[in-house]
Amino acid sequence: MITLASDFGSPYPAAMKGVLSSRTDVRLVDISHDLPRGDVRTSAFWLRETLPYFPPATHLVVVDPGVGTDRRAIVVRAGDHVLVGPDNGVLLPAARRLAGLEETGSSDGSNLGTTSDDGALEETLSNDDGSLEAFAVDESGLETPVPSGHHEATGSTTFHGRDVFAPAAAAVETRNGPLETLPWLSRLTGPVDCRLPVADVSEPIAVAGEVLAVDDFGNVITNVPGDVLEEARNVRVNGDRVPVGETFATVAPGEQVALVGSHGYVEFDVNDGRGDDAFGLAVGDEFVLERVPPVDE
Amino acid sequence: MITLASDFGSPYPAAMKGVLSSRTDVRLVDISHDLPRGDVRTSAFWLRETLPYFPPATHLVVVDPGVGTDRRAIVVRAGDHVLVGPDNGVLLPAARRLAGLEETGSSDGSNLGTTSDDGALEETLSNDDGSLEAFAVDESGLETPVPSGHHEATGSTTFHGRDVFAPAAAAVETRNGPLETLPWLSRLTGPVDCRLPVADVSEPIAVAGEVLAVDDFGNVITNVPGDVLEEARNVRVNGDRVPVGETFATVAPGEQVALVGSHGYVEFDVNDGRGDDAFGLAVGDEFVLERVPPVDE
Amino acid sequence: MITLASDFGSPYPAAMKGVLSSRTDVRLVDISHDLPRGDVRTSAFWLRETLPYFPPATHLVVVDPGVGTDRRAIVVRAGDHVLVGPDNGVLLPAARRLAGLEETGSSDGSNLGTTSDDGALEETLSNDDGSLEAFAVDESGLETPVPSGHHEATGSTTFHGRDVFAPAAAAVETRNGPLETLPWLSRLTGPVDCRLPVADVSEPIAVAGEVLAVDDFGNVITNVPGDVLEEARNVRVNGDRVPVGETFATVAPGEQVALVGSHGYVEFDVNDGRGDDAFGLAVGDEFVLERVPPVDE
Repeated sequence: MITLASDFGSPYPAAMKGVLSSRTDVRLVDISHDLPRGDVRTSAFWLRETLPYFPPATHLVVVDPGVGTDRRAIVVRAGDHVLVGPDNGVLLPAARRLAGLEETGSSDGSNLGTTSDDGALEETLSNDDGSLEAFAVDESGLETPVPSGHHEATGSTTFHGRDVFAPAAAAVETRNGPLETLPWLSRLTGPVDCRLPVADVSEPIAVAGEVLAVDDFGNVITNVPGDVLEEARNVRVNGDRVPVGETFATVAPGEQVALVGSHGYVEFDVNDGRGDDAFGLAVGDEFVLERVPPVDE
Repeated sequence: MITLASDFGSPYPAAMKGVLSSRTDVRLVDISHDLPRGDVRTSAFWLRETLPYFPPATHLVVVDPGVGTDRRAIVVRAGDHVLVGPDNGVLLPAARRLAGLEETGSSDGSNLGTTSDDGALEETLSNDDGSLEAFAVDESGLETPVPSGHHEATGSTTFHGRDVFAPAAAAVETRNGPLETLPWLSRLTGPVDCRLPVADVSEPIAVAGEVLAVDDFGNVITNVPGDVLEEARNVRVNGDRVPVGETFATVAPGEQVALVGSHGYVEFDVNDGRGDDAFGLAVGDEFVLERVPPVDE
Repeated sequence: MITLASDFGSPYPAAMKGVLSSRTDVRLVDISHDLPRGDVRTSAFWLRETLPYFPPATHLVVVDPGVGTDRRAIVVRAGDHVLVGPDNGVLLPAARRLAGLEETGSSDGSNLGTTSDDGALEETLSNDDGSLEAFAVDESGLETPVPSGHHEATGSTTFHGRDVFAPAAAAVETRNGPLETLPWLSRLTGPVDCRLPVADVSEPIAVAGEVLAVDDFGNVITNVPGDVLEEARNVRVNGDRVPVGETFATVAPGEQVALVGSHGYVEFDVNDGRGDDAFGLAVGDEFVLERVPPVDE
């Protein structure tokens, strides 16, 4: 199985599906082609939360604001899964999760890769069991697509999803043997990383959190582990009191609620409405979450 | 085959596909993930008009504004099809159609379920041939997904599509034997129903109709059976004269037309434009449709 | 394999998938259902640039502003591929490309069909090798869908994707033998054509170009062959100087750039922004592209 994820909208994903279909009959499953455009971190979040529900597969990911530059194409083995995409960090949070090196809402115990802030490649892969390994792609070793009606390949500098990543994903999926046997892959010790911020919950009264994503419903997904809400009946979000609920319908339609979302994090939502509008929060915004002591209720 | 329909947009449907793919290799077909958000009645309309074109399948439907409340998860057998989703009525119009208990534009001859208006569960299933039966899901009997990298299941109160309905649909699709053999299903005599309004056409001159849906083209789909337009050359819609046409191109681009749409109902459209804007009609709006006598033309 | 392309948005494509799934188990692949609504020429461009990446397949295309009129349904054999759709030209550019009769950015050497401007059917197919042939569909020879719960077929005048083209595509895909053996097909010598304009590059200093498409990123895709940019460091677009780049990141975020896009044509883009807004260009707009002599730089 090959899954496809991108920020392409329509119709560019179809060209990738064409290339893949030309080379393998395995099932193709769309994750999304509406990942936030050019937003590596938020896309990485969605992939981390979605790909682990799939059986072992090759995951083709193209959120690639650096297309055509000298950023590498990489392949990452993560447990029984393989990810293919640009070396900009978008694959790493999902890869760590798939390799069992990171738990939901926990502080991050992995040491693969470097931060995307400095772009340095200083750290090395050191997980002993080989569950997580990165490889650089030698693009010259890939078979560039030759579309019908053309006499030669039409590689581009702007559409590596079609011309580089899809050929790589097809070759990975159809390989015989381990990734190491693919001659166009070489071990890479320091892929560019992307670290999703983890909220500091050591101070139990007031937690400094950050918005990781806003979903299509307008639900504000934070980086605050859900257990912060345990036994709380109310919280303050940037000073405003908000009830804690089990689910959206804990409050009346149009009312705000804080709850533990399906990713295990605190979410700020509105029943039958948009939490991002009501809370005035967008991706990357920081906020302070305070538990309201029961005595004050 | 499992079909998927939801109001999730992107990327939540992918998690459902992951769960399904982990449990069965059957084909997955997306109906739509852009059903009108939280709008049970309009979603029910689209499902009723779309699912009958499929071969026998398991249809996973998640339009679920009551997620996390005590509303039940249900499974409905409808002829050779099975529907899985929330007990809020969204499955019932399609189920009746699939079971052969309702014809296009006819008054409704079925007696499954109760109305969604009062939420009562008074009526019982009484179709003699067993073509339509509802079952309540005991969620504790389902295998909650354990994503890769997690040590235990991560059931949620806000994403039953992933944690309840997808597991139920996979188990239904891969069952051996009739639904009755699934130990986590129990017969349910009064699922919450959703009745699409039927226009009263007993008064042939002026019909009081209601808008059932507006499609992506802006076409206004009503609940008035198409045969009302038979032999009419013009109608009045809320007093304004509109020509009756065979198809959009009966009128010039930008002009209004009343026609029998692909669902068998009267539609108010604009050739190469949006009918909802031109007619000033939205879902749920009522209107009066009058046939203009030929003598007045 | 059957691919599906339309301007339907959601949920109408699902009814087509239902009809197809009822008749064949072959893989269904969505090209896009967000082709520009009712825009035959731009849709034809996208199909020409996308379908050649697929292996031999049946391509179902429904961009059909003339639905319900007497425009024909056609089937086109193009090399190893078959296209099914309305006789409005939308299939022809892709068909020529798939048949090997047109190269990227070259002037068009094919003589299939007539122009869509006059709608005449004067020319005949004359490619000697039979790689490109058109057939008219006798709709009465198709099996109109009968949805579950209906006693008879529900053909419509407004949804030929479901009622005509999907049945035709399923029959084409499941045929035994050449297209000529299908009794409901008859040779058609002059299908309506759609010619994408080709820029005149005989004057190397100033090229009069036209915008063929704007993609979801806002990139402005023109009809000027990419080799016009060879060795150029700057160009003028309608008088304004714009740097020529290898890829988006040649310029700083927010800056304009002219480059050779993934289709082989000159594109006007903005790094991390929308080229259509920055250049003030939309589909169909004409512009003058001048090479800036190095001496002037």
